[in-house]
Amino acid sequence: MEKEEVLRVIDCDVHNQFRTGKDLFPYLEETWKSQAVLRGGGLPYATPIGNKRKDANPPSGLPVGADPEYMIQQLIEPYNMDYALLCSDGIIAVSAFADADYAAALCRAYNDYQIAEWLSYSPKFKGFLCVATQDPLQAAKEIDRIGPHPDIVGVSIVGGSRMPYGQRFFHPIYEACQRNDLPLVIHPGAEGSGIFNPPTAVGYVSNYLEWHTCLPQTYMAHLVSFVCEGVFEKFPNFKLVLSEGGVSWLPPLLWRLDKNFKALRSSNPWLKRMPSEYVRDHIFMTTQPIEEPDNPKHLAMMFEMFDAENMLLFSSDYPHWDFDDPMKILKQLPVEKRKKILSENARTLFKLA
Amino acid sequence: MEKEEVLRVIDCDVHNQFRTGKDLFPYLEETWKSQAVLRGGGLPYATPIGNKRKDANPPSGLPVGADPEYMIQQLIEPYNMDYALLCSDGIIAVSAFADADYAAALCRAYNDYQIAEWLSYSPKFKGFLCVATQDPLQAAKEIDRIGPHPDIVGVSIVGGSRMPYGQRFFHPIYEACQRNDLPLVIHPGAEGSGIFNPPTAVGYVSNYLEWHTCLPQTYMAHLVSFVCEGVFEKFPNFKLVLSEGGVSWLPPLLWRLDKNFKALRSSNPWLKRMPSEYVRDHIFMTTQPIEEPDNPKHLAMMFEMFDAENMLLFSSDYPHWDFDDPMKILKQLPVEKRKKILSENARTLFKLA
Repeated sequence: MEKEEVLRVIDCDVHNQFRTGKDLFPYLEETWKSQAVLRGGGLPYATPIGNKRKDANPPSGLPVGADPEYMIQQLIEPYNMDYALLCSDGIIAVSAFADADYAAALCRAYNDYQIAEWLSYSPKFKGFLCVATQDPLQAAKEIDRIGPHPDIVGVSIVGGSRMPYGQRFFHPIYEACQRNDLPLVIHPGAEGSGIFNPPTAVGYVSNYLEWHTCLPQTYMAHLVSFVCEGVFEKFPNFKLVLSEGGVSWLPPLLWRLDKNFKALRSSNPWLKRMPSEYVRDHIFMTTQPIEEPDNPKHLAMMFEMFDAENMLLFSSDYPHWDFDDPMKILKQLPVEKRKKILSENARTLFKLA
Repeated sequence: MEKEEVLRVIDCDVHNQFRTGKDLFPYLEETWKSQAVLRGGGLPYATPIGNKRKDANPPSGLPVGADPEYMIQQLIEPYNMDYALLCSDGIIAVSAFADADYAAALCRAYNDYQIAEWLSYSPKFKGFLCVATQDPLQAAKEIDRIGPHPDIVGVSIVGGSRMPYGQRFFHPIYEACQRNDLPLVIHPGAEGSGIFNPPTAVGYVSNYLEWHTCLPQTYMAHLVSFVCEGVFEKFPNFKLVLSEGGVSWLPPLLWRLDKNFKALRSSNPWLKRMPSEYVRDHIFMTTQPIEEPDNPKHLAMMFEMFDAENMLLFSSDYPHWDFDDPMKILKQLPVEKRKKILSENARTLFKLA
């Protein structure tokens, strides 16, 4: 048996947590402090098992995920992680608030807080700046303000929305991402809350199990919209990461999209290539939660149906309940492909050393 | 080369059309005649190429799909069809109307019209009775009224909805289906119109290409809801057909659903088996529009990932633009599996001779 190579890991979805609900106060303009920072968007679902790992309580007594030192000890060191990309946690859900200015203020506070309290803590931490989607011009200004920071490697928004993301209303965000050479990372978490559309194409499902199972539907609709509305023609250097939405739904969706495009392309004359080609060149997906068919060969077959080795980025979702262990997933792939997915694709996309 | 066997075909999705907008008047109660029968639900999308085949105009001068004799000549005879199952056309979209009584009245008229003018025309025609979903108790009465007719082989509702179909509000429909031993056939066509939820989990996409590509999302949400809400435990003989929504999205969805169920099952204690087991035993899918990956082997691989040979039912969608020819699809399958999909599964499910 050949000696197994120690594979380096870059974790593209790590959720650092607040110590208390007042962590943002030092970074928040006075006018907003009278509002409860974490009033939330009103997600009508609750998980029956909590959303944090039971084994991730820091000895410091800080809440799960809120102690940077313990995150290094429990996540980064044992798994050979070169970098953990901080995805924040509930903060991107502010896009579900009715008040666009309040949502934008919270994002600004979060971005300053993240740099001061997390990104400066260790060179292993890199972060995504957060923007709210209610006011894309204001979001673009925030991308220009924070984007140049050397430890900021992407821009994060939430998957829930009132409108599909390809529509022109949102284009200032993508223009700012391209201008600052930062990928946009869409992350789930507030679908169906606040001002967002209900979380499925037929309204509100009943509970967290159904809601979580249906989450990829927001990504399917956004992806179709991004491609069909011509976002990747308009912003040719714009890159997109679909985080924590699964990956196996991609081939069937692209088959349907390409087939329909062949018949109906007259409605989208600005598209110069097949829809699936834009996806292959512009879109990345994080791995967690990876699908686990009873027959592991089926996942390997699925990976043959799209450019998995170049489109996938490893992510653990630490410290959430459905953590994926980088040493245990993707075992069916040859080592060269695992290497790309575990770290090299992310290193290139996010320009990490 | 062995001589190719002539495979029998049962077409599970044929859209017979009205000759004029007044076809239903003889079957409609006087009180509703003052309203335009085909006022529609206000679907905000239009196909750039029309929704009918260009080569299907009957010599009689009747509209495409409105001449039963020509349907027999153009569709049933050349393709060795034992039966063409009539799926109506726009009528199921009445579930998008705000007025539940008007919608129910139109369905009653349609069901009487279908028996009088189509099902009595040829023994090759069998039909689905239509019900509106706004008032499930009224729908159940209509299933009891029309269901016993020998040429009625199923109950049809539309995919668009305000709520996922597993929820208790709709259960009287499934109870009536089970009581009358009729499968429920869900068909797309009005997603996002009238009182329905927008057609994706993030609201209204921009055009027909995007809308049509996203259609399977309604089925994904309904399927998750049917299973998780326990409909198949409550109605153990209830069978469901998902018509014209594609098939390849099924394995990835079931992997995600089963995986989530393992962690979150405490919220759904009424489920006694894995979600995918209910799907395998209770749900069927029609084939059209079949996915067409560049590499046909990929579709064959996808068929290995679920019980395709027992769950799929052939359908052409005649006379719509994206007709599938039964002699051209599924060529990659061995003849025994093609036989089941082209006719035998439908023969058993719909109890056809």
